[in-house]
Amino acid sequence: MIYLNHHLNIASRSRHPSPLKKIIQFMAMDDMVSLAGGLPHPSLFPLHTSTITASSPCTKHQIKLDLSAGKAENPFASFLQYGSGAGNAQLRQWCRDFTQHIHRPLCESFDILLHPGNTNAWSKVVNLLCERGEYILCEEFTYPSAQACWIPLGNYAAPVAMDAQGIRDDSLESTLAGWELNHPGIQRPHVLYLVSVGSNPTGVTMGVERRRKIYEICVRYDIIIVEDDPYFFLQFPEYELNPKTINDTSTSNEQFLASLAPSFLQIDYQGRVIRLESFSKTLAPGLRLGYFIAHPFFIQRLLLATEVETQDPSGLSQAVVLSLLQTWGMDGYLTWLRNLRHEYQARRDWMIRAFQHEFTLVPGSQHPDLDVADSTLVAVLDAVPIFSFVPPTGGMFIWAQFHLHANPTFQRLRNDQSLEDPEKCFADYFWEMLVEERVLLTPGSYYHPWQGEDKVTTQARGAKPAVTNFRFSFSMTTREEMKRGIARLAKVVRASWEL
Amino acid sequence: MIYLNHHLNIASRSRHPSPLKKIIQFMAMDDMVSLAGGLPHPSLFPLHTSTITASSPCTKHQIKLDLSAGKAENPFASFLQYGSGAGNAQLRQWCRDFTQHIHRPLCESFDILLHPGNTNAWSKVVNLLCERGEYILCEEFTYPSAQACWIPLGNYAAPVAMDAQGIRDDSLESTLAGWELNHPGIQRPHVLYLVSVGSNPTGVTMGVERRRKIYEICVRYDIIIVEDDPYFFLQFPEYELNPKTINDTSTSNEQFLASLAPSFLQIDYQGRVIRLESFSKTLAPGLRLGYFIAHPFFIQRLLLATEVETQDPSGLSQAVVLSLLQTWGMDGYLTWLRNLRHEYQARRDWMIRAFQHEFTLVPGSQHPDLDVADSTLVAVLDAVPIFSFVPPTGGMFIWAQFHLHANPTFQRLRNDQSLEDPEKCFADYFWEMLVEERVLLTPGSYYHPWQGEDKVTTQARGAKPAVTNFRFSFSMTTREEMKRGIARLAKVVRASWEL
Repeated sequence: MIYLNHHLNIASRSRHPSPLKKIIQFMAMDDMVSLAGGLPHPSLFPLHTSTITASSPCTKHQIKLDLSAGKAENPFASFLQYGSGAGNAQLRQWCRDFTQHIHRPLCESFDILLHPGNTNAWSKVVNLLCERGEYILCEEFTYPSAQACWIPLGNYAAPVAMDAQGIRDDSLESTLAGWELNHPGIQRPHVLYLVSVGSNPTGVTMGVERRRKIYEICVRYDIIIVEDDPYFFLQFPEYELNPKTINDTSTSNEQFLASLAPSFLQIDYQGRVIRLESFSKTLAPGLRLGYFIAHPFFIQRLLLATEVETQDPSGLSQAVVLSLLQTWGMDGYLTWLRNLRHEYQARRDWMIRAFQHEFTLVPGSQHPDLDVADSTLVAVLDAVPIFSFVPPTGGMFIWAQFHLHANPTFQRLRNDQSLEDPEKCFADYFWEMLVEERVLLTPGSYYHPWQGEDKVTTQARGAKPAVTNFRFSFSMTTREEMKRGIARLAKVVRASWEL
Repeated sequence: MIYLNHHLNIASRSRHPSPLKKIIQFMAMDDMVSLAGGLPHPSLFPLHTSTITASSPCTKHQIKLDLSAGKAENPFASFLQYGSGAGNAQLRQWCRDFTQHIHRPLCESFDILLHPGNTNAWSKVVNLLCERGEYILCEEFTYPSAQACWIPLGNYAAPVAMDAQGIRDDSLESTLAGWELNHPGIQRPHVLYLVSVGSNPTGVTMGVERRRKIYEICVRYDIIIVEDDPYFFLQFPEYELNPKTINDTSTSNEQFLASLAPSFLQIDYQGRVIRLESFSKTLAPGLRLGYFIAHPFFIQRLLLATEVETQDPSGLSQAVVLSLLQTWGMDGYLTWLRNLRHEYQARRDWMIRAFQHEFTLVPGSQHPDLDVADSTLVAVLDAVPIFSFVPPTGGMFIWAQFHLHANPTFQRLRNDQSLEDPEKCFADYFWEMLVEERVLLTPGSYYHPWQGEDKVTTQARGAKPAVTNFRFSFSMTTREEMKRGIARLAKVVRASWEL
């Protein structure tokens, strides 16, 4: 194990175990009469049994979960009581076994800690590692809620350029190598925040080769990698522009697992990866349940923070998830996940087909002037390239880059010397046109890393000129709605581009 | 409304609403096709219906809650989806109506925000108001987990002396009036943290007259009062040393409510009270559910923090509590609470009867040399006063002050000039004797407010000499266990006091 202590911020280094911990050991002594604990009496809880109807992973039949059944005397009551902070031991063990099976972490020394969702998990990590004024390495386009957590704490983003494989190793290397020169007096970042599968918003997934390169740079510059990975199991095959094969949904769980891009845990030989796992996208967000996988050094400090900041996640959520996972078994859960990713894959395909219905989609190589990755598709209307995107192989989002060179309104805005950021002006105007036509996209500006007041315009951010981004989500709408929405988009494009 | 902005710390002042909020309004427009939201599809949640058997507040029969039943189309599914951050609107409204009915807040302008338990609520308040280096006003003996949250953040306690009514107004006044003199260069505290009913650990409850005095001082010195009140409904009648009347359990809900010490909300005409409500002691801790009641100014900022730090509490917990409260109705819930406090009152009485079985209990007035409050009872053995306590009228704890003058071991320790803190030495030694005899109490030192490294000994803290405290909890043990535990205590006392 490498030395990790210097990564903790002052608050985390100041945390000490509660003296109550010491007392708990004594409570377990034979014949002890404990007048020390301050728990409410479980006989006075008004909830007694709970049954849930749940999906079966394999069949259309529903199954019944009885939360009051189990080896222990009414385990439901124990989920209604205060927990230890780390979460139910059986559920933690399940998550540990699952982690071992799925991720095969290279570091044998890892621990599990339950948390109430990745939003809270990331907040705890920021409060574990980051000090006011520090920069956090992140993707060129990053998840806004993650940023909204760190900005008020006085942290800034150090964005790393991306391509179809996620952040680029050359950009990470040059950012770090040139740090002292470009940021005199400011500490070099030591935390990298990544949504490395089906990234929100870009939809891209980082393959194993890129991961190895990124990891080695993190070793050299002593960076902690925080892998926020809610979409890990929503990875799907590449989109086929002209499908020759009927989609094969009959793969086995083994084939499914083999098809997934690996986690950084598989590469991490030093314990410098903190992984945030969530049940929000695989079971349900309202559970507010997930877990940390990390080196025991980090888990121990995260537990100390958990004890005074949140305590255990909801006992009901823990009880339901444990019962569901135990009933399904690991293989059943994998079958559930395998089917689930097909559902989201189908939605991705609906969305891109809807694009194809209104635009002509051509490979990026046909438009070398656009400077886009090979795997990019370009949506063309009347021979004019309108937007391009990397067809996602994971997650819920398509990240479209609109190419504005040929747009008359943008040309006017760019020639207006009084405008500081014509790209942003165009994006606002275009978004309002879309709203008038009743189709709603998320503006790309929401995902711009916050680098401070002086770096908000397209030029100051060093961003590509004459483009602007919008995020399409394919998770929630029906196929018909997608078709209708994209037809409206095409109508607005025709009007704006004067086609 | 008074100006409250200056109470926020830098982080809270830097929080801005998420741009996603703006988009949500547009989603609701007629005929809008939204490709903006990033939610998982509810048809892909594996949980469908849930039924819970619950207590009836009035009878021994159990009732059945169906979480999937309701006016809306399967409301259970909506609890499984992401929430707004503020919590379910119906549950918030229920809490609002309940607050109006129970507390009749003097400030008509108050809002409700759900939170995942008072541990998290207090952590959010510290991160809302306090800056590193600031002092927080608190009770002379304060809740350790509350402190464990603020100590690593660089905050210190400014303890206020207590009597049988909680913190003393003269002590609060003198602490604040003399602040600049005693703490040159350090900002005067602007936050008061209180467990003002059935305080943990002291068990005391603050009456209305004391509350008015405290509140007026807080107005004069511009202090925000944070009322952490999980035991509010566990208030019970005074303990009768020689009961003449059979305990009357036939009171009405109206009589019950009239018997409760009021919240600071009933006195607060300026919006300077932040109240932390919890279902942990009234329903079950594993729900991890409670709510803030505060001025909209504070609620709005707490909501911004909630969105990026925790999101909604568990949807399952919200669904269960809403269903239970709606089924019981407000009157049913009050009946439940009224019965619940009788249960804890009975446990308090068992504990004090167990004291009476081993010691002679006499009013504090019979031992003027002990300098204890009038309502104090003194436990005497062979004419030697051993410990004294204020019989609690709320909560789960008895806070015993052991009087060490007559103890031979303590006398030896006190005469040992090499010892810095003979009281603490005695407490450690006595606690270990108790453990050997298999009875476990919580050492009073756990509840000492942290004032810095230089104020840890009894003398440096300015604490009363020749006494030491232990906390007895009466919530979890049976009557027989209490008897056995107190008999063991008496045995250790005889040995240690050489009686």
